[in-house]
Parts: sequence; structure tokens; C-alpha cells
Amino acid sequence: MDDTSFKLLAKYLPSTYVQQAKDARNSQNFLINQLLEKRKWPEEGWSDRSIEMLLDELASLDSNNFIKNRGVGEREARIASSLVARRNFHLGHGLGRSGDLTEVQPKAAGSSVMYQLTNDLAKDALRTLGVPGIQACFVAPLATGMSLTLIFLTLRQQKPKAKYIIWSRIDQKSCFKSIITAGFEPIIVQTVLDGDELVTDSGKIEAIIKQTDPELIACVMTTTSCFAPRACDDVESVAVICKNHNIAHVINNAYGVQNTKCMHVIQQASKKGRVDAFVQSTDKNFMVPVGGTIIAGFDKLFINKVSQCYPGRASSSPIIDLFITLLSLGSKEYISLVKERKQLYQSLKEGLVKVASQFGQRILHTPGNSISIGISLPPLQDPKILTQLGSQLFLRCVSGTRVVSNLEHKVINDHEFRSWGSHHNKYPTAYLTAAATIGMTPVDVEQFLHRLTKVLESWSAKIAPIAVPLLTNGHEVFAHDLLLTDEYLVDQESSVI
Amino acid sequence: MDDTSFKLLAKYLPSTYVQQAKDARNSQNFLINQLLEKRKWPEEGWSDRSIEMLLDELASLDSNNFIKNRGVGEREARIASSLVARRNFHLGHGLGRSGDLTEVQPKAAGSSVMYQLTNDLAKDALRTLGVPGIQACFVAPLATGMSLTLIFLTLRQQKPKAKYIIWSRIDQKSCFKSIITAGFEPIIVQTVLDGDELVTDSGKIEAIIKQTDPELIACVMTTTSCFAPRACDDVESVAVICKNHNIAHVINNAYGVQNTKCMHVIQQASKKGRVDAFVQSTDKNFMVPVGGTIIAGFDKLFINKVSQCYPGRASSSPIIDLFITLLSLGSKEYISLVKERKQLYQSLKEGLVKVASQFGQRILHTPGNSISIGISLPPLQDPKILTQLGSQLFLRCVSGTRVVSNLEHKVINDHEFRSWGSHHNKYPTAYLTAAATIGMTPVDVEQFLHRLTKVLESWSAKIAPIAVPLLTNGHEVFAHDLLLTDEYLVDQESSVI
Amino acid sequence: MDDTSFKLLAKYLPSTYVQQAKDARNSQNFLINQLLEKRKWPEEGWSDRSIEMLLDELASLDSNNFIKNRGVGEREARIASSLVARRNFHLGHGLGRSGDLTEVQPKAAGSSVMYQLTNDLAKDALRTLGVPGIQACFVAPLATGMSLTLIFLTLRQQKPKAKYIIWSRIDQKSCFKSIITAGFEPIIVQTVLDGDELVTDSGKIEAIIKQTDPELIACVMTTTSCFAPRACDDVESVAVICKNHNIAHVINNAYGVQNTKCMHVIQQASKKGRVDAFVQSTDKNFMVPVGGTIIAGFDKLFINKVSQCYPGRASSSPIIDLFITLLSLGSKEYISLVKERKQLYQSLKEGLVKVASQFGQRILHTPGNSISIGISLPPLQDPKILTQLGSQLFLRCVSGTRVVSNLEHKVINDHEFRSWGSHHNKYPTAYLTAAATIGMTPVDVEQFLHRLTKVLESWSAKIAPIAVPLLTNGHEVFAHDLLLTDEYLVDQESSVI
Amino acid sequence: MDDTSFKLLAKYLPSTYVQQAKDARNSQNFLINQLLEKRKWPEEGWSDRSIEMLLDELASLDSNNFIKNRGVGEREARIASSLVARRNFHLGHGLGRSGDLTEVQPKAAGSSVMYQLTNDLAKDALRTLGVPGIQACFVAPLATGMSLTLIFLTLRQQKPKAKYIIWSRIDQKSCFKSIITAGFEPIIVQTVLDGDELVTDSGKIEAIIKQTDPELIACVMTTTSCFAPRACDDVESVAVICKNHNIAHVINNAYGVQNTKCMHVIQQASKKGRVDAFVQSTDKNFMVPVGGTIIAGFDKLFINKVSQCYPGRASSSPIIDLFITLLSLGSKEYISLVKERKQLYQSLKEGLVKVASQFGQRILHTPGNSISIGISLPPLQDPKILTQLGSQLFLRCVSGTRVVSNLEHKVINDHEFRSWGSHHNKYPTAYLTAAATIGMTPVDVEQFLHRLTKVLESWSAKIAPIAVPLLTNGHEVFAHDLLLTDEYLVDQESSVI
Repeated sequence: MDDTSFKLLAKYLPSTYVQQAKDARNSQNFLINQLLEKRKWPEEGWSDRSIEMLLDELASLDSNNFIKNRGVGEREARIASSLVARRNFHLGHGLGRSGDLTEVQPKAAGSSVMYQLTNDLAKDALRTLGVPGIQACFVAPLATGMSLTLIFLTLRQQKPKAKYIIWSRIDQKSCFKSIITAGFEPIIVQTVLDGDELVTDSGKIEAIIKQTDPELIACVMTTTSCFAPRACDDVESVAVICKNHNIAHVINNAYGVQNTKCMHVIQQASKKGRVDAFVQSTDKNFMVPVGGTIIAGFDKLFINKVSQCYPGRASSSPIIDLFITLLSLGSKEYISLVKERKQLYQSLKEGLVKVASQFGQRILHTPGNSISIGISLPPLQDPKILTQLGSQLFLRCVSGTRVVSNLEHKVINDHEFRSWGSHHNKYPTAYLTAAATIGMTPVDVEQFLHRLTKVLESWSAKIAPIAVPLLTNGHEVFAHDLLLTDEYLVDQESSVI
Repeated sequence: MDDTSFKLLAKYLPSTYVQQAKDARNSQNFLINQLLEKRKWPEEGWSDRSIEMLLDELASLDSNNFIKNRGVGEREARIASSLVARRNFHLGHGLGRSGDLTEVQPKAAGSSVMYQLTNDLAKDALRTLGVPGIQACFVAPLATGMSLTLIFLTLRQQKPKAKYIIWSRIDQKSCFKSIITAGFEPIIVQTVLDGDELVTDSGKIEAIIKQTDPELIACVMTTTSCFAPRACDDVESVAVICKNHNIAHVINNAYGVQNTKCMHVIQQASKKGRVDAFVQSTDKNFMVPVGGTIIAGFDKLFINKVSQCYPGRASSSPIIDLFITLLSLGSKEYISLVKERKQLYQSLKEGLVKVASQFGQRILHTPGNSISIGISLPPLQDPKILTQLGSQLFLRCVSGTRVVSNLEHKVINDHEFRSWGSHHNKYPTAYLTAAATIGMTPVDVEQFLHRLTKVLESWSAKIAPIAVPLLTNGHEVFAHDLLLTDEYLVDQESSVI
Repeated sequence: MDDTSFKLLAKYLPSTYVQQAKDARNSQNFLINQLLEKRKWPEEGWSDRSIEMLLDELASLDSNNFIKNRGVGEREARIASSLVARRNFHLGHGLGRSGDLTEVQPKAAGSSVMYQLTNDLAKDALRTLGVPGIQACFVAPLATGMSLTLIFLTLRQQKPKAKYIIWSRIDQKSCFKSIITAGFEPIIVQTVLDGDELVTDSGKIEAIIKQTDPELIACVMTTTSCFAPRACDDVESVAVICKNHNIAHVINNAYGVQNTKCMHVIQQASKKGRVDAFVQSTDKNFMVPVGGTIIAGFDKLFINKVSQCYPGRASSSPIIDLFITLLSLGSKEYISLVKERKQLYQSLKEGLVKVASQFGQRILHTPGNSISIGISLPPLQDPKILTQLGSQLFLRCVSGTRVVSNLEHKVINDHEFRSWGSHHNKYPTAYLTAAATIGMTPVDVEQFLHRLTKVLESWSAKIAPIAVPLLTNGHEVFAHDLLLTDEYLVDQESSVI
Repeated sequence: MDDTSFKLLAKYLPSTYVQQAKDARNSQNFLINQLLEKRKWPEEGWSDRSIEMLLDELASLDSNNFIKNRGVGEREARIASSLVARRNFHLGHGLGRSGDLTEVQPKAAGSSVMYQLTNDLAKDALRTLGVPGIQACFVAPLATGMSLTLIFLTLRQQKPKAKYIIWSRIDQKSCFKSIITAGFEPIIVQTVLDGDELVTDSGKIEAIIKQTDPELIACVMTTTSCFAPRACDDVESVAVICKNHNIAHVINNAYGVQNTKCMHVIQQASKKGRVDAFVQSTDKNFMVPVGGTIIAGFDKLFINKVSQCYPGRASSSPIIDLFITLLSLGSKEYISLVKERKQLYQSLKEGLVKVASQFGQRILHTPGNSISIGISLPPLQDPKILTQLGSQLFLRCVSGTRVVSNLEHKVINDHEFRSWGSHHNKYPTAYLTAAATIGMTPVDVEQFLHRLTKVLESWSAKIAPIAVPLLTNGHEVFAHDLLLTDEYLVDQESSVI
């Protein structure tokens, strides 16, 4: 509706109602205009209604929604199914032009504005959540692995001779593959055992850099958020090393945005040393479906190069999801969820201490990891017996635990990983991990602890003949008597890796 | 509802109604079961209601929708915004596992089934639409440019020493960038002028291959669907050359699925020669939002390698869009749209012949291109004057035309392209293109021709002092007297490139 | 978005794009403004997107959607469930104030405008579809029966002594109950058999009027659309009688809007005689869910009185449904559906002629009914045997047929109806009816005829021993040998009434 | 999906995943089956997803959604607009058959089950919320006024000679009109002033009954929830009187469900005396859009008669809204909202005490009303000056206050109401009311008090010259100096009535 509409409404309504209706409409426009003007993450979340109305307004600016438009090109964002049109808010042109992911699309002014706003909100969010020094970022319609690959491909364009990426080992396949797919060779730096905890071998990293022709090193890759007992990498030290030797440094901050510590070390690293880019998953941090990351950095030019490296257009779906979610939550609600997560991490830890002791086990001491917690398991020769623990939990509707036996060895793209899953060639004990992540509720923690206890009870009864007793830690275990039932064979994340 | 539900319904309804309700439900299940069993593109389209109910059923199989589920992992597909949850049908886990894009996700059985089904439907669709020999395909959540890059990165893993990609020139930036981003060097093979038409220089391609160490050549890339006056590449000849010299061959079939001819040449090429992969955009061919392609081929192993090359997870949005659209249209409706497009191409051509002759111009004769049509424009020294033509059309709500002046030279990643936009270093005339693509309507054609006539009238009046007369083809034109108004400055696709 | 928004967009977009975006938005506002100004049923249907945006705009004018609103009344249109809010487009205040259904609600300016617009569109629709003389109408959130009751209650207020309503018999229970519920006594005028057809006994109506104190007669009620073999009432003659004797005349035009003839006779009646109100169902004529009528008339004052008679507020849902549907179809599409219905009536008739002759039966000749068609059935003593015919059709997914045995007698509120269902105390033959109504498709007709043939085959085989033969019309039938299976017992509309 | 589907899924998924998917599906079916079996208001609310899936399942049982259905009747629930179909969950048949609102519809088994379930849930809700003795109820697709009319029309059928309804005055127009529309004459019993409070004149009611032929009295109507300073009627005493004299008793419990006290007195009344029916609005108590009531009672037969009195079909929209909302909230959440309301009533009262004293006014002492609160206003001769107070509040986005001047006299249907709005012919002071109703939030209370203070400040400044001083209660006021601005003229609920 425009001014003419309100004039026409005078035929339908007393003038005071028209005036008030206009005022109400102005309030809504004011919300939009504030966003357009300030480009900041609003403190108060928006209602779904306000968000949808903004998306409708933006979609109206895309040529496929012009009432009079006639398309004679090869790509006109026609949408055949009304179901598809509706779920995409009639936005059909995706992101980017051939030159650059963040470039304005002539046929899609609304989509372009939406993307710029999302990038602005994302930048403000990262600033608000612990990295005030950030200079540029964009939301990539790619999950973490492929986003890292994109960064590596950009680095290749800048350093065409580079062959290697130095990588502080983390046993997550897609991290490793992001290097391989980009066509680089990983130089794997094993983590160091410090008590229960696995920490960065910065000395080794520096030693490798010193030994190698710098032209051949594309970058060092470190990781913040990870499964216990691995700690957040010592990104500060690595950043300093990288700065000193003029080597690029890429940080995988997959689910670190929700964690003050992960964010803080990145900010510190950028001050003292070198950080070229850090990548965070949108699904893990902002509770949207899988498919996006925020690629951020402290050098505008480099981050622009990454976005320019992307050839052609891309799906705008991950951006729409993040845009809606950032507006819907507002910073206030998000920060309160971050605080709640911290408390739930404590509850989870306290609960696990109790459960562990009940079964003669203990919590792994990993002060460098404030998201994931490990609980030791008795040493068994047969990884399948451990598998069943994860399987049983999954079948009891507990998802996300990981059982690590230290007995699995894996070869990925010609690289051997001993004790795959544990981030270390010889971790002293088998264990199970659980994590407290954003969006979790007290009921999740309580129910998980309850079901874990039940499962451990039945499981320890089963392994009793071979692991006499589960309560006595450190005993030799004989697997031959164990009857494997079908459920042990579940092949899943929740099981041994 | 299950059998128990129907028993309980007997308290609410006479038994015959319960029986009939059960029958009705069975009809709906029958639809689903047929799909699960046959894995074929249904001939009759499904109603939106049936599609949504299937998606709801599938989402119920994902762990984040289990009523009792408690997640303690770092990635639990929690969705913060109900708006986001709804638009994604509560599917949050995306696609793939670290190992492979097409692998089953333990936490997301429903998403995994949906993806497999979409791949099955896509394979059947490509078979139905002209490439019966296809052996494997998958829907990639990437647009054309990035999909080509992914294929090239896979080729690199197989042939680590390869440096070059031989490329039959097409002036579309993202094609070119897909090579650069993958870290390869393009060897550009200029097209050859044959009458008005630009055709493949197969001889040159073979010559280059003969001259070069085969270990250094990653592949040859050809293109089917393209803007006139470029013709569909002679993919058959190139395929034969590639087969003879054992060189990989990748075809960019961006919007060729809608065109029987493009599909036919691919099928022929695969029979007589070598085709490793061919890529088609989902948005351009199936009228979904930008963001997906079907990567297809005739060797299962290679296509699997491409999907395994993708590091980590990805957005399932482009897959959902295609899944819905394929079910919604059914093959019958799609085939009738393909036929309608063919007729509209004829109408468009006939209409343009008339318009052209009215202004002393003519249609470019390009029998090798059955989608896009070029109409000659008078030779002007100043590309900006041509620009205004595109701008004026865009401002009159005509999107998708391209005005090519042949006067623009461009350097992209150190490669110079003379006369960028025309696929040729020295095309003899300026021209404007328009295309008939799937989803177009008779009203689109009619309105376009009407507006084009109007715009040409005013434009030719403006350039009259300098291009006396537009009606007299072949004259020299002086731009100095032309007053450029703001609207000429629009920087857009519809304008000169 | 407002002017400020577009100014702010200049930070995001080149100025020409902003201008074009503004133009696009103006096109949409133009659509709205035309509607607000002309208050006419648009010829061209609106897209769902445009309709939703208008509803969103209107909802923004209701106080419950004011961003700053704080409610301290007892009725603030708070909506607890987001599902409910969404499906009602956030319109919560319903219709009307205590004084009048059509009065503007201070807290709900948007809802009020929507209601006025719907009433305007409905009026224009009735005019367009054959009753140009209509002076006033409103959409009542009540189905036909209750709407008639409301009109009768209004008549009572005007004529407090009235006791009777003279009613040309039609065997539809809710018509009859509308009289009883309003507290009146019906004077039932039997229809007259004219060949196969049942027609109005106008003479009897006039005779009754002459015999009765006019103060005691509330009105005469006639019916247009009805099941064959009853014809549309002779509303013209009745209107003339009512005019002459100064008696109110109410017409039940339940599904007559889709039928040119029904509309025409109302228009003629209003010219020559008296018509106080005529009522049409929104679901049957405009394909919306059950729940609304258009109450229309030729005297503004009386129609206003009816709307003022409604005590308090009411659901706006039936109005929203009609508003959307009228905009979505546009008059052009509706008129073409009306024409298609007419053709399908012909196809249905021709098809039934064939089916009937195949089984020794015939079509009832009812030129006064152009919607419903009757086909004779063999005379059977046991209505249950006829019942099974309807049941079998229903179980084969044919809904809407009616089997009338003439053997059922019914007493409703102390009034006896012999041969209930046939509109006549002694109709000479049993029969089955089928109707061609708006929204029907050629496939509906074809499939119905196919299934009817199949069912008649099996049914006639079953009754063969008792009704030797079905092919020989007019025979006596003995039911005793017939085995009744469960399916005969279905109690439903499709069966004997 | 059915068993066959799960068998087919084994081609797509490992068997353990299929098993788990089946388990998950069973959990969802279990939810549905529990509801079907227990017919109780669930304690825990359902997710929107679960509710939508149930509605989809139910809609599948309606003939218009049968995949193979072919309709040849006059009413086949065809839905023309997909927007309308979607918002109605594809339920098109509405409620009821001609015989009875609650009867099962053969063509609409799903709708019928949904309606039965809603009636069951509503009954359980009323029981849970304070009227355990309830014997029957149904949700009527009518708002309060028309529902009362329907009850009165039913009473008329039982007592055809009845002429009068004895009515304890409440100044709400639709209550009064519900009597008139039903064709009865109201006998108005004025309330009695008891301190500040207006209470029921039970003695007068009994006296009238004694004086009148019982055959002429249809019923007594009392009201529970109402605006201060009127108290909840003494329904217990009236019930006893009605029982003693064998007169029907109908209670308007419009927004009393949210209030323990209103519910308690109804329960008590039913035990000690006679209550034929009590009516509660669904929108005011359950936060759904306007359009429904629950008509409840202690005698199954009578409540059935009311539902049978409804002639024909009706919209199912108000029922869908209530069904969704009851499932969505669950009893636990609703009860906690009831408690929160009670607390907010206290906060509102305390706040108003402060505001009142600040302006020399006071709270009216009305212990018999625990929803609405009155605050006295200075005596002014000109009601328009009071009007402006309400207007100013409304323009400041406070909705729902009522300013009562006691200076307005109104004639409705020949009945004169002195001091309309105040429920009393001569209430001693002007006042403003505000209410604490369910769904209100602490921010609503706080913001209201803030804005009220601001408005009173400016208003008292304006009236200072005439009402010297506002702080001095009881002074004579001269209106002549007051400048009336436009905003005084707003005609709205929030203003003087």
C-alpha cells in the first residue's frame, strides 16, 4: 500500500482509523528502515510475520516477480511448482554473478539486498560474539569442508607453486578431505598428550615451516571446536609462527561461535599473529539446516578474493535460513542461549562425573575443551563390543555420542591414521564423548544421563564375563565369550570411529 | 495413522466409513510405494498435497524429528526458527557424510532416501529426455560453474600432473572461471565463423592434443546450449578425438535438457566417442531456484568419484526443490512444456524476422542453435549507444536480452578476450539475442516483440543523426552527437557485455 | 517499504535498480489501488502472491498486529498458536460489532476493509452472473440453512404476529429446518407432476395466501437449484403473487449462481414481482469450504436489517475464503468454468441416456432443471436393495449420487413427508440422480459413467432373481431372495433418502 | 507410509535404520492413538508438526481428498484456490448434516472425527478448568451472541408459548440483541449498587417469576465475566430460584473459562440449582480468532437439542482453530497461563492504585470481579471530554480500555438504557476500565500503566481550566473552555459508551 491506497481507504474507514492504520504501517516500515540503515544485528528478535513481510518486499524487487516482466533469456527464475516458489519466498535467482558471489544481480535486486544484509548481520554477530576485530565476512552457501576447499583454492591462485598444507591433526574426515580436494598434500602434525588432553604441537609446526621452502606451503590449518579429549588448538602460538614466517593461517572454527573461548582465541590470534580466514558453520552455531558457513577474516581484500574465486551462481537457501534466524532470534536471545549452553555444559559434566564413578570410570580432564566431554571406557580388545554401546544409545534415541576404541586404523587418500577417531596415534584409553551445544535443553541433559546409565547397566552386565569387572579399571579383557547381537552391527556416527 | 488408529476410529465412525477411509489411505500409500519400488519419474504429476505428505513422512525418519530424540552431539539439526523449519519441511541434516555426498546419513534416514530418490528421478528424466545411455548421475547442490570445478578437481586427483584444460571458447565468465578456480590453465580454442554461425574448431582441438604431453591435459570442455550466433559445439567429433587420444571430455549442457538436439548429440557422442561427465543446471531446465546441477555420465565409477570428492556435507535445498518439481510436473507435463518451447522458438523467430526487416536488419542464420536467436544491429562506434538498447528493454520489463557490440575487450585472469561476449575475436556485426526457454508463454513472446518494436522505434530515432539511417545497414556511425541519459548507464546483463 | 526505504536502498543498489524496484512495487500497489477504487470483481485473476500480500497489508491495519499495541480489554485478538495465526493471515477480530455484522470495527480496520471489499466483489459477481438489478448483499458467515433462518428472524421483527411460512416443497432437510428453527410453522405446498417433472403449484400458493390473514404470513419461500426431477420453482409467478398480496418472498438459490437460468429467473422475478432476499451458498457456487452464503436483495434497507439482526461478532473465515477465491479466479476464469459446466451437463446427459438404455431404463425428462439429471430405476419393494446401488457407487469412489425409492416416509418436527426425498407424495418411479456442477471435469463425467455401468451390471445381476429382468421396466420385484451384504447397510447421502 | 513402504525402504537404508525409522513413526502414531483412545486434553502440548500431520491424516479421510474420487453431487467440497485449500488443511465439507451439527458426514469422515475430538477436548478442558460436573458440550461455529440466540430458539421449540427472557442487565449490546433476534421480549432486571459494586438483584428476579405465567418465561439469563464495576452475577442464587420455579437458566460465561471463580460458581450453581446451558467464547478464553463458542450443560439431552436445532451445515474453521490450539497448548501450558493472568491482575490493580492516587482518583472496590478493574474519573458535564481519554489511549496503541461517563442514554429496540455502558441507571461516578485477560504479558501491564500516566497528565492539563483541579474529586466541571481537537471525535470502543 502507498499514499494513494491510504487516501482510498478513507472511503472505507473513518479518517482517524486511516491515520492510525498508517501509523501502524509506519512502525513496520521503521523496523525495516532501521535495518537497512544500521546494518546491525537487532537486539530484539523480529516476529515471523515481520520477517516474512520483509522477505516479500525484497522478493518484489526481483524481476521474476515484476507483474509485467517478460523474460527472453536463458535464466529467468521461472519457478514451476508453487510449493517450491512458496518455500523460497519467490526468490529464484540465487546468489552472485559469474564474477563474484557477492556482486549485485541486475535481475535480482531484492536477492542482492538480502544477501548484503545477511553478510552485514553475520559480521555484526561475529563482532558481538567475541571477535570485534573482524574486517570482512560473507556467508558461503557451502558447508565447512567445501568452504575450506574454496579458501585453499583461493590461496593456490595467490601462490601457484604451493603444494602443502600443514595441519594439526583432527579426526574429522571432511577437514582432511578439504585439503585433498583442493589438490594439496597435507603435512599432518600429531597432537601431544598432556594429561588426558591432546594439545597442539606448535613446536613441530614451526620446525616443519623452517625446514620447508615457504613457496611450497599454502597455509597452516588449525581447529578450535572439536571433540574431547582434543583441546582447542593453540591458535595464538600458531598465528604468531605464521606471522613470523609469512605463512597463511586458516582456522576451522566449525562450531566455535557459540563458545566464548573459541571466539576469544581467534581475536587474540589476529592481534598477535596472522589469521587469514576463519570458518564457522551456520547450522552448528545458528541452528539452521546444514549448508552454509560464514567465511570471515581480518583483511578485506583476501576475503573478497575468496568470494570472487567462486565460479558462477549459487543457492540462496542457506542465506535465507540464516537471515531469518538472525532476525528471529536477535542478539539478546542468542546471547542468552550461549549462556544457557555454558550452564548445561556444567550440568552435563557434573552428571557424567556421577555416572562414570557409578561404573568405575572417570571423566577425562580436558580444560581446553569447553564443549565436548569424554568419559573413559574399560579397555576391550574387540572394538565391536564398544560399538554396541553407541548403537544401544542411538536405538534409545540418543544421538551424537561418539565411542572411540583406539583400535581402528584407517587409510584415507594414502594417509594412514592410527587410532582414527582419537586425534592421536596411541591414546591411552577408550572413551565416549558427549557435547553441550547451543539449543540443547535441560531435559536433553537429564534424559541423556538417564538413558546412558540404563545402557551402561545392561552393557556392563553383558561384558561382565569378559571384562571382570567393569568397575575395575585397567583389566585385560577377553572378547571371545561375548555374544554379538544384531544391534552391534549398526554402522553409524554414534559408534566407534 | 496405523492399524490401531483405524481400529480406534470405529468408535467415531460407522465401520463402512472406516473401511473406506482405510482404502483412501491405501491409495496414497500406493503412490508412495510405487515410487519407492520403481524409482522412476512418474508420468502423471503428483498433487502438492501428496508431495507434502511424502516429505512429511520422510522428515519423520530423520532423528531431529524423532519425538523422543535427545541430541548430545555437535550437530543435531536443531532448527531455531519455526519459519526456517517449515520452509525446509523439518529436514535439517543436509546431504552427505564426510566420505561422500551420496552416502546414507545415520541421523537422517529420511533425507538420505529423499536424495537417493531425487537422483533416481533425475537419471530417469535424463534418459527419458534423450540420453538413454546414461549410467549414473547425482544432483549436486552447486550451480553449473562450481559443479564443473568439482569435476575438474576430481580429474586432478586422477591425473595429478595435469595442468591444462582445452576449452572451446564460450563467452560466459563462470565457465571460464570454473577452470581457473580448479587451478588449471585454459587452452582457449577460438570458434570458427561459418556464415553467421560460430562453430567448433575440432581440427584445432585435435592439433593441440597431438602437440601436448597427454599427462598434462586434464580434459577437453565443450558446451552445448549457448547464445547465438555460437552453435552447439560439435561434441560428437570432440568425443571421438578424446576417445582416440585417451583424454577426458566434460560437456557443459547448462540448459540443454529442454532441447532435444542438445540431448541427442550427447547421447551420440557417448556412443561414438568419450564423454566423462555432462552437467546440466536444475534451475534453467527444471524451473527451480538457482543452486543445483545434475552431474551425469556413462561411467558409474567416475561419477561416484566426483561425488566422493565433495568434502563434507551440503545443503539439501536444491535437492528438495528438484524433487518437488519432478514429482509435481511428471514426465507428461514436462514433455509437453518441451514441445511448447519448440513452438515458441518458431514464433519468436518469425516475429523477429518481421521486426528486423522493419528496421533494416536481419536474423542471424544459426541452424546449430535452436534456443537463442540473434538479430543484427547497425554498426556503431560507441558501445554505450548499443548499451542503451538493452537498458531500455530492461526498464520496459524485458529481461534476458543481450546486446553485443563486439567493441568490448576484456582480460580475465590474465587471458585476453577480444570482443568479449561474442565468443569470437572479430564477429562481423553487432547484434541482440533473445531466447525461447522452457516455461516461456505465448504472451511472453508477443509482449517481447511488441516492446522490442517500441524500443527500436525510439532508439533508432535517437541514433538517426549519427547512424543515418538505421534502415540502411552497413553504414558508418558517429556517436559524438548522442545525448546519453542516465538510463544508458545501467550496468546489467541485458546490456553490452 | 516506503520512500525512506527506497532512499536507503541506494546504499545497496545502483540507482537505476532502485528506480526499477520502485516501479515494480508501484505496479503491485496499482493493483491494490484499482481494487480499492473500483470495488469491482477483477476480470483477470490475481496471483496467490499478490493476494497474500494484500491480506498481509490488511492485517497490518488490525490492532493485534500493531507492533506497539498493548491490549487491556477482554477481547484483544491474541492468537496463541502460530499455526492458527498463520492460517488466518493474523486476522483475529472476526466480523462485525454488536450492532451490525457489516459495521467497521475500531480495533480491526483491516478486517473491516476486507469484509467491505468482499461484499463489493460479491455484489459485482452476482450482477455479472445474471442479476444486474441487485441492490445490496453481504456475505454471511453462515451456511444456507442458518442464513435462511436469519432472514426469517428479521422478518419476524418486522411482522411480530407472523406465524407461517408458505413453502414450495423441496426435500432437503435443512431448508425445512430453517423454518422450524426460526420458530415458524411451514405451510407445505406440494409440487405438481408434469410429465416426469415436478413443478411449482403457484395456484395453490395464491389460494393459501387468499385464505390466510396476511399478518400471519411471514413470507413465501421458493427454491431454484434442486435435484431432478424437481424443476426450478416458478419464482416469477410466485413473485408476482407476493407483490399483489404484499407478502415477502425469499428465494433459496443455493447453487444457482453457476447456472444462468437460475440467475435469470431471479432477475425477472425482481422486475415483475417481489423478491425480498435470495440466498446463495459460497461453497457450492464458488468452490470454497462450507460456511458462507451471499444474502442478496433488491432493497438495501431490508438487506441491512438482516445484517443488523445478527447479534454480535462472527468468524471471518468464510469471508477470507471467498475473498481469496474471487480474486484468484477473476470473472474471466469463473465465466469459463460456468460454460464448461454447461457442456459437461450435456455430456453427462448424453452419457446417462446410453447407460440407461443399456439397462432398460431411461432419463427423466426435466427441462426445468439444468443441473441435476434423474435416471429411472426398476420398481423394487425393498428400499434396501436400492440402497445398495448408492452404497456400491460410494465404495467405488463416486460421491454425490442420490437413489430415491419413493418408499421412505419421514416425520420431521411433526410434519409427515410421504416418499421423502422425491419432493412429492407419490412419484411414479424410483430413480438415481447425478449433477453437473461447477468445477467438475470431463474426467469426472467419464469415470462416473464408467463406474455406474460397472455397478449397474453387478447390481442387476444380483437383483435378477427378484426383478426379472432389470431390462424390463415396470415389473413387480420381490426382495426376499436378495442377500444383503454389509455394504448395503452404509447409511449415507448417496443412498436412499 | 505403511508396512510395504518400510519393506521397500530396505533397498535404500541399512535394516537397522529402517527399524529405527519405523520406531520413530510408531511414536508419532502412538500420540495420535492415545488421543483417539482417551479423548482427553493432553497435558503436554503437541508440536505444530505433529498437529499438522494429524490434520493431514484426517483430511485424507474426507472424500474430496480421495485420489480416485469422482463427485457428481451438488456439493463436493471442491476448492478452487490452492491458497484456500492449504489454509483449510484441505478440509472442505464443514460441519454437520441437515439433521444435526454433530452428526457424522458420510463424505467427510475425517472432518467428523476432528469435530468429535474437538468436542471431547473442549469437554475435558471445561472439566479440568473448574466445572467437573459438565455432562455435554459442543463447539458452535458461532460467536457468543448468536450462540445465545440458538439456545433461545431451542427453548422456544420446547416451550412454544414463551415470550419473555428475564435478564440481569449487562451493557453489552450483543447480549441484549441475542434475546431480540430470537424473537423474545427481555424483562430487564437492574443491578443493585453495593458500595462501588453492581450486584445481581436476585430478589427482583424471583419476584418477577412469581408474578408471571411460567409458560411465558423462556428462561433467565445471567452473566459471569463482565466489566467492572459490575460483579459476576449471583448465578448460584438464580440457579436455585430457577430450580424452585422450574424455569430454564442460561449463563453467559463469555470469558469466564480463564477465571477460576467464574467456573467455580457455575459448578456450584449446577449442584444447588438449575443451569440449562452456559456459553463460553473460544476467542476470549482460548486465544483463537473470533467465531466460536463452547455451548455446555449438565443435561445431555438439552445440549443435543441445541445442536440439532442448527439447520444445515456450518464452517469448520472455528473448530479447526480451537482443535489446533488445545493440542498446541496442552493443559499444562494453559493452566500456567491462567496462573500468570491472576498475577497480572494483581500487578495491574496495584499499578492502577498508584496511577489513580497520583491524579486524585481511586480504584473502584469490586471484589466480585477478578478480571476487570475500574478507576474513577472526575465528573465532567460533557461526555466528549471523557471520550478524548479513550481516544488518546487508543492513538497511543492502548486498546481495550473503556471510558464510561454515565451521561449517555441509549434506546435499543424500543428499550431505553439510562447511562448505557455502566450496567446501571445512575452509577455515581465516571470511570475507566482495564482488564487482565489470558495471554497478557507483564510488558503489556507495564506499558499500559506508563502510557496511561502520560495520557492522564496531558489530559488533566487540558481539563484543568474546567475541572479545577483533577486532584480535587467531586468538583463541578465546566466544559466550555475546552478545545476539542480532532482526536476527541474518534468513535470507538475505547471511548465513552
